[in-house]
Amino acid sequence: MLQINTEMTKRAAELRSEIIRKHPLVHCITNRVTITDCANALLAVGASPVMSEDLREVEEMASLGQALVLNIGTLFPDQVEAMILAGKQAKKKGIPVIFDPVGAGATKLRNDVSDRILREVSPDIIRGNMSEIRALYGFEGSTKGVDADVADLITMENAEKAAVIVRELAERTHAVVAATGAVDIISDGRKTVFVANGHEMLCMITGSGCMLTVLTAGFAGAAPDDLLSAVTAAFVLMGISGETAYAETKKEGKGVGTFHTFLIDRLMLTDSAEIAEKAKIYTAWKLRIITQDCEA
Amino acid sequence: MLQINTEMTKRAAELRSEIIRKHPLVHCITNRVTITDCANALLAVGASPVMSEDLREVEEMASLGQALVLNIGTLFPDQVEAMILAGKQAKKKGIPVIFDPVGAGATKLRNDVSDRILREVSPDIIRGNMSEIRALYGFEGSTKGVDADVADLITMENAEKAAVIVRELAERTHAVVAATGAVDIISDGRKTVFVANGHEMLCMITGSGCMLTVLTAGFAGAAPDDLLSAVTAAFVLMGISGETAYAETKKEGKGVGTFHTFLIDRLMLTDSAEIAEKAKIYTAWKLRIITQDCEA
Amino acid sequence: MLQINTEMTKRAAELRSEIIRKHPLVHCITNRVTITDCANALLAVGASPVMSEDLREVEEMASLGQALVLNIGTLFPDQVEAMILAGKQAKKKGIPVIFDPVGAGATKLRNDVSDRILREVSPDIIRGNMSEIRALYGFEGSTKGVDADVADLITMENAEKAAVIVRELAERTHAVVAATGAVDIISDGRKTVFVANGHEMLCMITGSGCMLTVLTAGFAGAAPDDLLSAVTAAFVLMGISGETAYAETKKEGKGVGTFHTFLIDRLMLTDSAEIAEKAKIYTAWKLRIITQDCEA
Repeated sequence: MLQINTEMTKRAAELRSEIIRKHPLVHCITNRVTITDCANALLAVGASPVMSEDLREVEEMASLGQALVLNIGTLFPDQVEAMILAGKQAKKKGIPVIFDPVGAGATKLRNDVSDRILREVSPDIIRGNMSEIRALYGFEGSTKGVDADVADLITMENAEKAAVIVRELAERTHAVVAATGAVDIISDGRKTVFVANGHEMLCMITGSGCMLTVLTAGFAGAAPDDLLSAVTAAFVLMGISGETAYAETKKEGKGVGTFHTFLIDRLMLTDSAEIAEKAKIYTAWKLRIITQDCEA
Repeated sequence: MLQINTEMTKRAAELRSEIIRKHPLVHCITNRVTITDCANALLAVGASPVMSEDLREVEEMASLGQALVLNIGTLFPDQVEAMILAGKQAKKKGIPVIFDPVGAGATKLRNDVSDRILREVSPDIIRGNMSEIRALYGFEGSTKGVDADVADLITMENAEKAAVIVRELAERTHAVVAATGAVDIISDGRKTVFVANGHEMLCMITGSGCMLTVLTAGFAGAAPDDLLSAVTAAFVLMGISGETAYAETKKEGKGVGTFHTFLIDRLMLTDSAEIAEKAKIYTAWKLRIITQDCEA
Repeated sequence: MLQINTEMTKRAAELRSEIIRKHPLVHCITNRVTITDCANALLAVGASPVMSEDLREVEEMASLGQALVLNIGTLFPDQVEAMILAGKQAKKKGIPVIFDPVGAGATKLRNDVSDRILREVSPDIIRGNMSEIRALYGFEGSTKGVDADVADLITMENAEKAAVIVRELAERTHAVVAATGAVDIISDGRKTVFVANGHEMLCMITGSGCMLTVLTAGFAGAAPDDLLSAVTAAFVLMGISGETAYAETKKEGKGVGTFHTFLIDRLMLTDSAEIAEKAKIYTAWKLRIITQDCEA
């Protein structure tokens, strides 16, 4: 049986305390649907949010933060320009930029904007679902063969194959790339990490992906020199919080509204000790051996 | 005593399963206040939301969905153009368009925009409160006499009279028109349906009307050839969910915050069997006979 | 030991009923992060929200309300113009204008817009945290000496000194100025009030400040001739609601998600009797004597 990576687990537990101690300010240019949840998720874990997309202040605001989030979920023209301006400023200052390509692959606009952000900003972290990661991966035409083989959703069965895409996109973009699914895949192009925490009820509320993105930014703000660990810590925290929130929701016979509330609770209450105990971080993935660990 | 319409009740119960099976994608161009709740309500019942209002992609996005929502709660100039573009595209593709004329009657702008949407898009379903439905009804001057007689709120007492307005607006617009109140009135111009489910605490949270509109769109996406049933199913599901959520909230001694959470829970958990048992769908409304059924 | 001000406590309790009876309509031009919470907070206490920022209707909408809120949390160019237009219209009609200078002091844009609103609209009430109030206070250069002495956060220890800033800003702007902190300070330039209700968990959710601002507007709409009492009543209601919500959250072993839900519950359920019992309103503040009252 594959072993949980104890070193990365220890690091994720450490970073859970570090984010509280450093209280990083995360500047978010993000979508209108989940903006409130994003702010509350950051506050719950001990970080601090600021949302601003006015062209007249985004560069100044980006300079004040410890991380910058660009989320293209509900675009409009000025917002794209604000993302480019803020993104360039953050890069100039050495502040990590986290890109969430919401809906990339669905419309030409989202592909064009994603492509532009990759080229003009060169984000440090890219966080999406597999369909979005594939869309970004497909921007350069030479890889259609592999692309066509990988489904939109990461499952236990296809995770090894999906990891090839994630790792190659990381290599090509020099970013840490993280794809969410039944198994999460995170890669900096050299090292690839699999996280098997989480619960499928996370897909029944809006904002779980966007919250994960801002938490990734929060941890990146607390550990800017160790982004692979930062991303992994955020994924583990969200995954464990989802597991516990689901267990509590089920126990009370409730549904997704209560789950949503309990998820925010758990983002606050899940501490280093719980992470050390429950994290399922693997640095290799073999289907048949690991499946039993991942039941909902 | 009037009989509950068993055929429509059976259909509403069927559609509760149908929406889960078909998982319709609902494209919403909607207001900033309730956009998160709208997304979560759709996810809770088994549909899928996408919010997009960028002029550069709304036609493409509208084509991807099974229903389109236009909600004028927080207007700005480009959003109106996005609604017209997306609405025309949806109509061209045979995708149902659901219009929520939030605040029609309150300002000239909302009247003008509503009038323009009616004329240029010709929505398939119109969902509002009685004051908004009256405003739309009054756009053609000939009916001031009836108009002046009907109050802004539907009560047990005035529902028969209000139904005349609803039915006539449906006839004139060739849409299914649905007005929310103590009794809900739904008409396609020939058949008129009364739904007596619901709880007044729904008026103490923002978004209950907007959520009802997107759920109506979800059901319309699952049953595009039977819009009267689709609208009725959405109203019954929201009404029963409100009743149960209130009962649970009261039992715990809590208020509107908890009610809001429990409402989303119940949108998920209320199934076909509960609809079959609790739906109060009538195809005629006689005041004195029915009142006792509708106590909160 | 300092005495609680019984007259102002009685007035706050009265106003809790008054807001339900008068059901004031509050027009909000506010930020995208907390707009939903603001609407729900107003509904919970018995007021009615309308959010509108379209330049084509803001003057008409402002005229329909009993109070107007201007919150600069997520600015964009047209929104600033909408604030000025609506603000001037409200002033012309004698409708109280409440200004929340979110982030003033953080960027040049927020300072410029705040300065413009102060000059062109002359709001009746200004509600912010101490860092924002200080920023507004500092717009006229002569007071740097005092300014430099007062911290960004009001604590038990610095409240007397902070009150000087609050009172002087009130004198200068002819507004009721209210600064939130461990102790809240409210002044109309002549009389200064200290409110010691509240709980620090309010700082762990987004929107507690913005909700307090709209509640202040709700009470101002219910008591436009007694703004100092209106502001005090809003602060006391929010503070007590936070205390009770925290106690309930702790009892259930939950976190900030549940606290958020229970806070909205308590905004609804905290009545005049509870205010009369629990309000901590002081008209003078002496550190060593009062500290023991304020433990969380």
